[in-house]
Amino acid sequence: MASRIPDPVLTADELADFFIKTFPGQDRNFHDFVELRAGFMRLRHDVSAAMLRPGGIVSGPTQMAFADRAAYAVILAHIGIVPMAVTSNLNISFLRGIAARDFYADAHIIKLGRRLATVDVRIWQDDETNIAAQSTVTYALPTD
Amino acid sequence: MASRIPDPVLTADELADFFIKTFPGQDRNFHDFVELRAGFMRLRHDVSAAMLRPGGIVSGPTQMAFADRAAYAVILAHIGIVPMAVTSNLNISFLRGIAARDFYADAHIIKLGRRLATVDVRIWQDDETNIAAQSTVTYALPTD
Amino acid sequence: MASRIPDPVLTADELADFFIKTFPGQDRNFHDFVELRAGFMRLRHDVSAAMLRPGGIVSGPTQMAFADRAAYAVILAHIGIVPMAVTSNLNISFLRGIAARDFYADAHIIKLGRRLATVDVRIWQDDETNIAAQSTVTYALPTD
Amino acid sequence: MASRIPDPVLTADELADFFIKTFPGQDRNFHDFVELRAGFMRLRHDVSAAMLRPGGIVSGPTQMAFADRAAYAVILAHIGIVPMAVTSNLNISFLRGIAARDFYADAHIIKLGRRLATVDVRIWQDDETNIAAQSTVTYALPTD
Repeated sequence: MASRIPDPVLTADELADFFIKTFPGQDRNFHDFVELRAGFMRLRHDVSAAMLRPGGIVSGPTQMAFADRAAYAVILAHIGIVPMAVTSNLNISFLRGIAARDFYADAHIIKLGRRLATVDVRIWQDDETNIAAQSTVTYALPTD
Repeated sequence: MASRIPDPVLTADELADFFIKTFPGQDRNFHDFVELRAGFMRLRHDVSAAMLRPGGIVSGPTQMAFADRAAYAVILAHIGIVPMAVTSNLNISFLRGIAARDFYADAHIIKLGRRLATVDVRIWQDDETNIAAQSTVTYALPTD
Repeated sequence: MASRIPDPVLTADELADFFIKTFPGQDRNFHDFVELRAGFMRLRHDVSAAMLRPGGIVSGPTQMAFADRAAYAVILAHIGIVPMAVTSNLNISFLRGIAARDFYADAHIIKLGRRLATVDVRIWQDDETNIAAQSTVTYALPTD
Repeated sequence: MASRIPDPVLTADELADFFIKTFPGQDRNFHDFVELRAGFMRLRHDVSAAMLRPGGIVSGPTQMAFADRAAYAVILAHIGIVPMAVTSNLNISFLRGIAARDFYADAHIIKLGRRLATVDVRIWQDDETNIAAQSTVTYALPTD
């Protein structure tokens, strides 16, 4: 009765290769895939000056891009390389400021359907219970 | 550094008393407070014909009302009776149909701030990994 | 280049008939279809005691059900009777309290796709610029 | 009874100066403030290779950053320079792809409260009825 989330079909290294090849202009080697297991992926994000907003905290757009990327990564890890998957909805609540040092995203697949995949992403710093932002991200998967 | 969620300040029975007194016209004795612990509450919901939509599945509004109620209940359980707390934002993704039998809401407090409280609610049936809907609910708390 | 919203294919009376037949147990004759034109529908909602929460204001669930219903109505008005259309995501921001008298929903179709339809709903009272809640509702349309 | 949105207190040029000074590392001179009037602001965005994703369309994070920026700009235009306003929630529905040429954001203030401001943002290309994304953005305003 329960919907089981399958095991990943890619390794973290294969995913990293895909991201580097697919987004070459973006120099996004600031993502580390820290952990990958069934239904779950943890990513690390480092900080540069361009990501900060007044007050020295990490900007909202930096967090949104990270949430979107974490959702994309955990989905691809489970269904294989499907570049044309596109975000259809993203909702994010910003709960606490993030200081100018490494922070993390924990992405849990809530549902992996045929047409839509929904992922819960928690962005945190220092301690995984110290949640800075919660995001629910829905991707539309290509159907043929 | 982590934000600790405090222990509840009310028991499930005290909460139930409050709901019955505060919403008398609504006859909502279909809520059972199944479990209450620090940062978490599980509620059970039974089904009547008026809650069903074409296809015999539980309607979206029934689920939204349940998510909102679950968030309200877990917040009040942790801060005491504050009737004037009001929902400021609710986002819900409907993932699977819910059949015409008991279903549940698991409400986890993500942040309990001074002005805002944010709760993650998962509605499920049969098995807690079989998530039918995910909702993120933000309540504005009265400040004096 | 622009995506044109087509004219409605049903009249307000035909829609009302469908709602009455499809949701008989719910006695929802409190909806009036005030206006229907290409891409747009306005609905009126009256108030009963069961819809009120502490403070005498209209409850959040009443507003969410109204937003969902308004979106469903405007979509069906434009694609015909498709009972199995289901809400896939609803986001609502509650901005002001609604007093215990008639209030309205203005539903604008933002996109009417083959698989998904997205509707912006504004709930207001007294004056259409006095917005009490904004909701974005996405329906999944059956594809065959 | 209606809540009137006040006239802007800043000009588009004053706003542009603020953005350039406040976000120097980000070189975001790709924003043009096309129009500013009571409750409304239109921004133009040009496109560079780093903003594109597979398929040559504008990435989701580029659109989210634009929606957030448009909301921030229209709010500051109406309340003056308040750098510490922070996004508390952002919800975005992606409706159509955006090709690699200029696109626009229309930001309408829905509510300008004392503690929260809510803005509806529509991102479009070629024709303002051709909406590529709809976003509802809530900012928390500092209270003293």
